[in-house]
Amino acid sequence: MPELRQNPATKEWVIIAAERARRPNHQVKLKRNYIPQEGDECPFCPGHEHMTPPEILSYRTYETEPNSPGWRIRVIPNKYSALVPDGEPKRSKAQLFFPHMNGIGDHEVIIESPEHDKTIATMAPEQVEEIFRAYSQRYKELVKDPKYEMIIIFKNHGMNAGTSLRHPHSQVIATPITPMHIRHRVEEAMRYFDDNGDCVYCEMLKKEKKAKERVILETESYLCFSPYAARSPYEIWMMPKKHRSSFEDIPEEEIKELAYAMRRALLRIYRFLNDPDFNYIIFSAPCHEKDGEYSHWYIQIIPRISSVAGFELGSGIYINTVPPEKAAAELRQTPDE
Amino acid sequence: MPELRQNPATKEWVIIAAERARRPNHQVKLKRNYIPQEGDECPFCPGHEHMTPPEILSYRTYETEPNSPGWRIRVIPNKYSALVPDGEPKRSKAQLFFPHMNGIGDHEVIIESPEHDKTIATMAPEQVEEIFRAYSQRYKELVKDPKYEMIIIFKNHGMNAGTSLRHPHSQVIATPITPMHIRHRVEEAMRYFDDNGDCVYCEMLKKEKKAKERVILETESYLCFSPYAARSPYEIWMMPKKHRSSFEDIPEEEIKELAYAMRRALLRIYRFLNDPDFNYIIFSAPCHEKDGEYSHWYIQIIPRISSVAGFELGSGIYINTVPPEKAAAELRQTPDE
Repeated sequence: MPELRQNPATKEWVIIAAERARRPNHQVKLKRNYIPQEGDECPFCPGHEHMTPPEILSYRTYETEPNSPGWRIRVIPNKYSALVPDGEPKRSKAQLFFPHMNGIGDHEVIIESPEHDKTIATMAPEQVEEIFRAYSQRYKELVKDPKYEMIIIFKNHGMNAGTSLRHPHSQVIATPITPMHIRHRVEEAMRYFDDNGDCVYCEMLKKEKKAKERVILETESYLCFSPYAARSPYEIWMMPKKHRSSFEDIPEEEIKELAYAMRRALLRIYRFLNDPDFNYIIFSAPCHEKDGEYSHWYIQIIPRISSVAGFELGSGIYINTVPPEKAAAELRQTPDE
Repeated sequence: MPELRQNPATKEWVIIAAERARRPNHQVKLKRNYIPQEGDECPFCPGHEHMTPPEILSYRTYETEPNSPGWRIRVIPNKYSALVPDGEPKRSKAQLFFPHMNGIGDHEVIIESPEHDKTIATMAPEQVEEIFRAYSQRYKELVKDPKYEMIIIFKNHGMNAGTSLRHPHSQVIATPITPMHIRHRVEEAMRYFDDNGDCVYCEMLKKEKKAKERVILETESYLCFSPYAARSPYEIWMMPKKHRSSFEDIPEEEIKELAYAMRRALLRIYRFLNDPDFNYIIFSAPCHEKDGEYSHWYIQIIPRISSVAGFELGSGIYINTVPPEKAAAELRQTPDE
């Protein structure tokens, strides 16, 4: 069973998950711990459904059996789960100085396509739409469980972004805590709301739209820009223009628009940066703050082309060598059709 | 001139430093941007002193000229500086929503040895002592400048730790701001002090000493342990046992002890993890809080053998697959002579 531990000085939570050390290609002593999986060893390829835990959800063209080929999207529990859903989260009071909880939570994998070598930039738009539909469906399901405080959907693409499998996939983790990192963001947004009577993200949208120079693309409901204080080169935020605090609130009819806009943004970085490793993360209000007037969900895309070194780890200040105005201008000019 | 920018929503500061993109081997479009420098191209090797800006400090065996060979330790301004020391830091009020400052600060490189292929684990202990003596000397000098709020000393070893040069070196950055990351730590430590009348780090030392299972080594004045909530496998904290908030406060006679203890700790990870890439960071109270009863300086060593992926970037929660008790037991058994 994994454990949640909190550092008593910094208040940062960590997950101690020794089980995850058993993942293939993850021997920590090796300097290079990544061996791209080929089709016939890949647990996410059609025909290998028995290599994963039984599926939670799948989208299928014909009425094939669960856990057999014929799917377009497949959602499964992570086999090497960071947190496990069996039981109730409990804070242990045995060692009061060292805060501790059992590692209750949810950790799922969304297999984005039956095709081993695709990436969102090279998939059909309809396929990308289904990925985002699966995100929304799983988010809406998990948010109903009162034991979860935060649900985070993210994607790791490529070795520098922390993935161990090449087959295109995203992940969902639901945690029974709100980490400090997120709590601080909520507090800052609340403070802005107190001082100004507005959502700081709504104000940011207005300012970025007016400034124009960091905007990459715009659709009816979304603005895609490189933020004024971009932490890393070609960092991109995709934000709904209407105030919505939780990803749960995305209307059905907007999912397609979001998916298409994400595909366009990812195709531009695929082309301009030559298929870089990247992460994206869906930031959404903590579950119990889901109706807040102060928070606003969005997606952050981070190409992993610069390193996190000692200065960033120590100070939390990132050094970005590409001004976001330059990055946005370059990505604006990159075709996405 | 670099710029400091703050994200108006998250309050995170970034440095926009387009000049740094000119570093050799740092074209951001390349997937692999690291080419180990060989001796005769290396700007940090003796005989190549003209390839760096003029030195700030050097320790020399004979009375050779500055900026010529004969040094054992050499401190220079970083040629591709993230912040520059010329001028006064000023907050610009032109765009109030987007906080902005000119990029005033100090960014130095400590060349740790004339030998290109050494690392602290394989250096003579006396050489390591001089490295820490140089850290202390530069810290004490920079902290006198009232424009600096934070001084951070760190080392990047290896490509995964973000270094672009193989020749052993550390860096010092002084910033005119206290970033949120550090401010939150100070606030947590203050809160603990308010509630308990003690420094939380002093209490941690007591608890870790008593628990024993995470202790790696101990000297008269330092405790070296893998913290209860270690963020990554084999993370190590080296902490002075006496309450001292600032690295400035290290007594002259303790520098040797610290250096020898650090060399022993680094030799153990060098042996047990087979020369892993790593960072270390000297955490010290912000300059204007240097006499605080609540903060406590220490060094964090982070072997870079696991990745920072989307979940960590999004949640701030790290997943550690090696319990610190196991890591400490293994490192305790690794010889360091």
